[in-house]
Amino acid sequence: MALCDEHFLTWVINQTERSIRKYDMFTHEDRVLIAVSGGKDSLALWDVLNRLGYQTAGFYVNLGIDDETAYSSKSYQLAVDFAQKYNLKLHAFQVDKTYGATIPEMAALSRRSKNKTCSICGLVKRHSFNKFAMENGFSVFVTGHNLDDEVAVLYNNTLSWQLDFLRRQAPVLPAKPGLIKKAKPFCRFYERETAAYALLRGIEYIEEECPYADGSTTIAIKTILNQLEHNHAGTKLAFYLKFLKAKPELFPQLGESLVPQDLLFSCPGCQQPTPKEGDCAFCRLISEVQTKKMAK
Amino acid sequence: MALCDEHFLTWVINQTERSIRKYDMFTHEDRVLIAVSGGKDSLALWDVLNRLGYQTAGFYVNLGIDDETAYSSKSYQLAVDFAQKYNLKLHAFQVDKTYGATIPEMAALSRRSKNKTCSICGLVKRHSFNKFAMENGFSVFVTGHNLDDEVAVLYNNTLSWQLDFLRRQAPVLPAKPGLIKKAKPFCRFYERETAAYALLRGIEYIEEECPYADGSTTIAIKTILNQLEHNHAGTKLAFYLKFLKAKPELFPQLGESLVPQDLLFSCPGCQQPTPKEGDCAFCRLISEVQTKKMAK
Repeated sequence: MALCDEHFLTWVINQTERSIRKYDMFTHEDRVLIAVSGGKDSLALWDVLNRLGYQTAGFYVNLGIDDETAYSSKSYQLAVDFAQKYNLKLHAFQVDKTYGATIPEMAALSRRSKNKTCSICGLVKRHSFNKFAMENGFSVFVTGHNLDDEVAVLYNNTLSWQLDFLRRQAPVLPAKPGLIKKAKPFCRFYERETAAYALLRGIEYIEEECPYADGSTTIAIKTILNQLEHNHAGTKLAFYLKFLKAKPELFPQLGESLVPQDLLFSCPGCQQPTPKEGDCAFCRLISEVQTKKMAK
Repeated sequence: MALCDEHFLTWVINQTERSIRKYDMFTHEDRVLIAVSGGKDSLALWDVLNRLGYQTAGFYVNLGIDDETAYSSKSYQLAVDFAQKYNLKLHAFQVDKTYGATIPEMAALSRRSKNKTCSICGLVKRHSFNKFAMENGFSVFVTGHNLDDEVAVLYNNTLSWQLDFLRRQAPVLPAKPGLIKKAKPFCRFYERETAAYALLRGIEYIEEECPYADGSTTIAIKTILNQLEHNHAGTKLAFYLKFLKAKPELFPQLGESLVPQDLLFSCPGCQQPTPKEGDCAFCRLISEVQTKKMAK
């Protein structure tokens, strides 16, 4: 579509509102917590939700990636600047202050093998988001995942026919005991569209990728998917929407979770839900990291 | 795997036998009809099944592709040579003699739009194979589809979440009233493996692709899949085998057919099963082609 700048900005706002309603994400009564990374997607999302009049607050997790890229400091400052400019509340959380180690330190200490830094980062963020949102009375937690993100995950899980992950992929995951409702209002926008929105709106965001993302599987997959999209424009959106349409037939007893609700256990350490009895993966990681750090 | 020539040939024969048994394809009591195109896959398959002592006959459909490539004449001669060398029975069928037009002529006359030549060719071949096999007392019909072929189809149907086609993809499709059992004994071999088998065995086959295949969707998809395989060796096999494993969970009320068996109608023209009441797609094509040819 060729739209002038102003109409493009309005189109993004209206399309976001459509997705929020279509997938029953949240209403104006909800207190919405946004995962803010300082990147284009999360800041653009915050901007759009704010303009749509939703009650929002941001949540920034400082990962402690402060090598020569100064990734965490830079992205935190951009998130702070954005919140100040629009007089929005930004909650910040520092991983190393609470858990005694930054994400890169955890990755160096842990035995985990594949995609270590990214998997640890995801684990810590999911835990922290859920904990903060539940303890502070938010009713829904949103992320800036765009269509390219969603399609990369879908593609990866499809090529390996990971049915449990496929079952779980959706624009909305409903709340469950101990787990906040999650939504992805940008799931139908191409990355170039969220980038254009941020640019036209004059939002300053961190342009660099996380230094640990380089060479990750997701980036390799995105390259392939861009090629498919290049061959046939619209491939990504069709792949995602047809999947969502096929889901009820593929997974008739849906259950959006990996584990049926009544089989979730409560972690004795953090009390968050976990699929197996005993300490959850997050608590096991923290315990491993702290033990190794003390032994040093 | 690095195998010397002789062991490689034995390995292909043994792996084929394993697939035949694993997927319950056929036994030594069956009369097996092989679709022979004159290409490496079908001739290698015929060679292997013959060495394994199965009762086989070949069926060649002459499509009448006799432009400057002389594709049909050349491939027919290679099929005849192979059959003579091993003293095997080859049945041949000429599309234009029976239906009044070659495949390229049909494509030129028909209104069909997308991938016209390939879709018409597939329709005519499926009809002719089934008809010949049923009328001549064969109990199973086999094709030389290799892993690369199967994965390309699977990939295409997955990207568009064509559940009816996904449900139907399998190494074996059981017999149904009016439809012969179908099997693909080479479905777990990479194309390079069937090519190596044909080469090492000294089988002469047509090396050119069908002139109409150029630029087809399948070839574009195979390029992408080769790239995935190049990035991670084994991707194709894993994608296919994990799909077969996931199928019972994805499609619990399996039904290998597009249409539940009791909903199949008998075509008033050719008496073959068809999913809708009235003339089947094949009979409609032939009628369209013949009408247009007479009007000229």
